Amino acid sequence: MIICRTQSEWKKEQQVLQDQPGTFALVPTMGALHEGHLTLIREAKQHHARVVVTIFINPLQFGANEDFDSYPRTEDQDLKLLQREGADVVWLPGVQDLYKEKQMITMNTSPLGDQLCGSKRVGHFDGMATVVMKFLQLVAPDAAYFGKKDAQQLAIIKKMVQDFHIQTTIVGVNTVRDDDGLALSSRNVHLNERERIDAPILYKALTSGVNETAHTSNAQLITKKAIDQLEDSLASIEYVELVTFPNLETVHSLEEGNRYLLAAAVQYERARLIDNIIFTMS
Amino acid sequence: MIICRTQSEWKKEQQVLQDQPGTFALVPTMGALHEGHLTLIREAKQHHARVVVTIFINPLQFGANEDFDSYPRTEDQDLKLLQREGADVVWLPGVQDLYKEKQMITMNTSPLGDQLCGSKRVGHFDGMATVVMKFLQLVAPDAAYFGKKDAQQLAIIKKMVQDFHIQTTIVGVNTVRDDDGLALSSRNVHLNERERIDAPILYKALTSGVNETAHTSNAQLITKKAIDQLEDSLASIEYVELVTFPNLETVHSLEEGNRYLLAAAVQYERARLIDNIIFTMS
Repeated sequence: MIICRTQSEWKKEQQVLQDQPGTFALVPTMGALHEGHLTLIREAKQHHARVVVTIFINPLQFGANEDFDSYPRTEDQDLKLLQREGADVVWLPGVQDLYKEKQMITMNTSPLGDQLCGSKRVGHFDGMATVVMKFLQLVAPDAAYFGKKDAQQLAIIKKMVQDFHIQTTIVGVNTVRDDDGLALSSRNVHLNERERIDAPILYKALTSGVNETAHTSNAQLITKKAIDQLEDSLASIEYVELVTFPNLETVHSLEEGNRYLLAAAVQYERARLIDNIIFTMS
Repeated sequence: MIICRTQSEWKKEQQVLQDQPGTFALVPTMGALHEGHLTLIREAKQHHARVVVTIFINPLQFGANEDFDSYPRTEDQDLKLLQREGADVVWLPGVQDLYKEKQMITMNTSPLGDQLCGSKRVGHFDGMATVVMKFLQLVAPDAAYFGKKDAQQLAIIKKMVQDFHIQTTIVGVNTVRDDDGLALSSRNVHLNERERIDAPILYKALTSGVNETAHTSNAQLITKKAIDQLEDSLASIEYVELVTFPNLETVHSLEEGNRYLLAAAVQYERARLIDNIIFTMS
């Protein structure tokens, strides 16, 4: 496994990759790798000759009061896991290497990036889209793999790649969960013992909401079902919302055959957790 | 000379270009070609094996009350001129072909795009940068040529390419002028006879301003010199501003060895004209 630090080290490896036969895929991460990330890598390896993993905690997508400083950093362990999974190249750029000068031109994801998580995390999706666009230009992979847990992120990246005619296939991979249903997240380490026991309620509530579609097509009743359950949680509810997928449009009455996203964010003492279910109305 | 209309026609030609030896350059235009555009093509031909010209009037960079509908369209003559200049490929995409679905993700050029022309043409530079980014992705040229007459556009594109690590060299080409100093522009056709006689005052005023730097380093006195002259014009002044180049920062006192942009926009009855001088303080 080749480890690159600087942009120029990466550019040499990119040349090697491009000269080799077969396609290569990118798995962009912020490190603190868990089974969810490893699943992205396994999926990527099944379809591509080579897999490149980036580890970069992007300051541009963290708000002033968010957890950039406390975001878990576990580089040694990450590299061991990547070695074991058979990643071909790992690139860990420094902040100075990606933002040599102040980033003056950025991506504008409004209105897609203003709703759901974006209504609280102002500027988050613009910052995320900006760094993903930078990586797509610097890496130019045949495909890039993202988790469906960040469904809004996935929807925005897919639209960006389409809108800007970028020759990279964006692949969304199913969320990996613990046995009790809790979606894996690097931020789960910030849950205390009681919160960890409580946290599966998030997925249970979303599941109840989706099950409610057997009885009603009324979006408000479906989200209410999920909210009612979440009110028993130790966490405070940031939002529970039902929108079309991937266009993230408000919906009042669900129509058969269409795809929807039921998404929620909750706040524990030190951890903000998100989860969602993407489903087709039947 | 090969003429492409649709994106798929272009993509076939792009493959041919990429398989040929040597580099290729892009000259993006909105048509209504004049000697200024032809100079871009000649410059591009001197440094590259092949030259691709696009003709596309981009609706996204025109405001609701601007001249999208009346922007001059002279396709037959444009193609004759391009043939004569030896352009290798001309691509004239349709609006539907570049904006198949509504463009949801766009470029944000603020604050660079908010000042000078941007303070009046709200959204113009975001729309311009968005379509240039689309063309850079779709064409992926070794170099792209732009006129210095649109100095703010040139500065924004250079910064965008740097910020997003795009492997295209952006080349700025000197403004071409009529014998009386008027900068060539597709919009000059909208000047009436009296206005056409008056219009060289724009460049004369800017020249007086720059000449004033022999006597003062005070930005306000320099712009005042240009404004005083422009007040004799038939046109109304939209702005005269002196900023650093290429960062477009406000400047109060000019420093030896630094580069500056003295830029102006004026409004005649049917034509809005811009011009500028980029200079180094000596």
